[in-house]
Amino acid sequence: MAVPWRKNPNTSLECQPWRKLSVEGKILLVKGVFLASSYSILCTDSSLMWEEILDEENLLERSKSLNSHIEAPPTVITQQLLQRLLNGPLIKCKYSINITESLLTLSVSGPLQGDSGPEYQWNFCLHKTPSLVLKHQLVNPLLSMSVELLRQRNRLVDIIEKKDKEIRDYRENGAVISRKHLETLPFDEKAFTNEMIVTQDFQVSSIDPLSSIDSSWQDLYRDLSLCRNWVSSTDVTSSTTEMLPGTGGTWENKLPPSLIGSATTTPSVSPKKRSLESSPSKDAEKMRRLELERQLENSKAKNKKKKKKLM
Amino acid sequence: MAVPWRKNPNTSLECQPWRKLSVEGKILLVKGVFLASSYSILCTDSSLMWEEILDEENLLERSKSLNSHIEAPPTVITQQLLQRLLNGPLIKCKYSINITESLLTLSVSGPLQGDSGPEYQWNFCLHKTPSLVLKHQLVNPLLSMSVELLRQRNRLVDIIEKKDKEIRDYRENGAVISRKHLETLPFDEKAFTNEMIVTQDFQVSSIDPLSSIDSSWQDLYRDLSLCRNWVSSTDVTSSTTEMLPGTGGTWENKLPPSLIGSATTTPSVSPKKRSLESSPSKDAEKMRRLELERQLENSKAKNKKKKKKLM
Repeated sequence: MAVPWRKNPNTSLECQPWRKLSVEGKILLVKGVFLASSYSILCTDSSLMWEEILDEENLLERSKSLNSHIEAPPTVITQQLLQRLLNGPLIKCKYSINITESLLTLSVSGPLQGDSGPEYQWNFCLHKTPSLVLKHQLVNPLLSMSVELLRQRNRLVDIIEKKDKEIRDYRENGAVISRKHLETLPFDEKAFTNEMIVTQDFQVSSIDPLSSIDSSWQDLYRDLSLCRNWVSSTDVTSSTTEMLPGTGGTWENKLPPSLIGSATTTPSVSPKKRSLESSPSKDAEKMRRLELERQLENSKAKNKKKKKKLM
Repeated sequence: MAVPWRKNPNTSLECQPWRKLSVEGKILLVKGVFLASSYSILCTDSSLMWEEILDEENLLERSKSLNSHIEAPPTVITQQLLQRLLNGPLIKCKYSINITESLLTLSVSGPLQGDSGPEYQWNFCLHKTPSLVLKHQLVNPLLSMSVELLRQRNRLVDIIEKKDKEIRDYRENGAVISRKHLETLPFDEKAFTNEMIVTQDFQVSSIDPLSSIDSSWQDLYRDLSLCRNWVSSTDVTSSTTEMLPGTGGTWENKLPPSLIGSATTTPSVSPKKRSLESSPSKDAEKMRRLELERQLENSKAKNKKKKKKLM
């Protein structure tokens, strides 16, 4: 069965997975949506969260004030900032950070394009978000991930137990393994759990989980966010916002109403569960997202009218 | 290999797993340590966190002010409060809640003992914690769980692939299954992932993860917390604090220094990772925990001197 929301990533900030950014010994999680001439970003130290939403006008103004000798088109600027924030720290760039409860300033300077471009300075200036944003962007997705992964773990254990039954059947009927190293021991879930928790990796998971965040982790974060967004946004029309390469894609289609209907009325989800979707926090988040999408759309529209040369 | 920290749960609040509490349509996570005459509890709505640490003196004072006609020994009170908070909502009790950013008040009234006991009123009065507590008690453990479960998922996939190789060997050497329903299909990880995300349970994970928190989830939370605590607390001496039944156990022993040494100096964990243990936030949390343990110990010592009758 095809999963439309999986093939066509949403452009909203909430569906972007977190990435680790380590600057001056501080470990942060960052995510962002970078469009042709604007961006919106979030950053957290796992206890507070800060954000910056910058439209084209302010982007160009800040670029000019920090780099009076450089005139670059917005697309070049946002592409460069995307690299610096989400692929960083970049070797050729210098990062510094200043954190207060209300403001997080991340300063990055380095070549604007390639290794030989002119030195280009940027300050990301993020303001502290309401606590609900931390819940919506970090805590709830992490809860979802832990629950979903536990479900997948249990399903995999079921599969292993079925394989063991098949293997036992062959053996009981006289089959003999041709190469000894292919033989496996019957799976014992309790022994497996004990084996996992005595490993060094378990300690790393418990003390330094951020070091283990990889693309699988990010894929699951994205899938769960897309699914949540999809279930709760049947009234959001298709967006054709164009994102920069590497930050996602576009909604090319939506599920037909018939499928959406069946997904939201299936009896296995109780009314209590559905009511969560329209909670005040959910609505507040949705308002934030819609406002953000509106701003970014406006910004993109403006951008089409202007063209500037690099240098 | 025996895992001492798993068999002997720590009495500290940070090692207690979260439980779901639903009151007046609000879904909260709660955890607590209930001793003979005092308690410490935490409560979160996933965006803010509140706590209450109550010693014997204040426990008795509040009990008296809310229930002037009842004189109950502290042990009976704390046992009853444990039931109301961590096993709740109890059918025979009435719950109400009032939340402001700085204060969360959970009022519970119902029979003190059994169904026929006298009506007993209690107000849990929790104050907002610094944001670091949310990080330490919720966000970091959830990050740990997601990373660890992903590791376990990958390990289980490895095991399945080995089983498939063994099965293929039997089949290629002419073995035939005796009962058709025991035969399995070769495992395909991509197909498995796709199968998982199109299920209704995936939607529940993404929208309402709290409904799926079960004992397995709590066991993993506890194991990771105990492990983190154990690795970072080689200077904490054995505690013999006695907890109420159902909230945990005691440290009966500690790993010998030789093992602790090898765990903290193994080359597979880089110096960067180890330095996290002594970060300011970690230290702050440890100070909080030590202070809490001191208060609870004092409270317990006081309790030994006093005995009161119920009614």
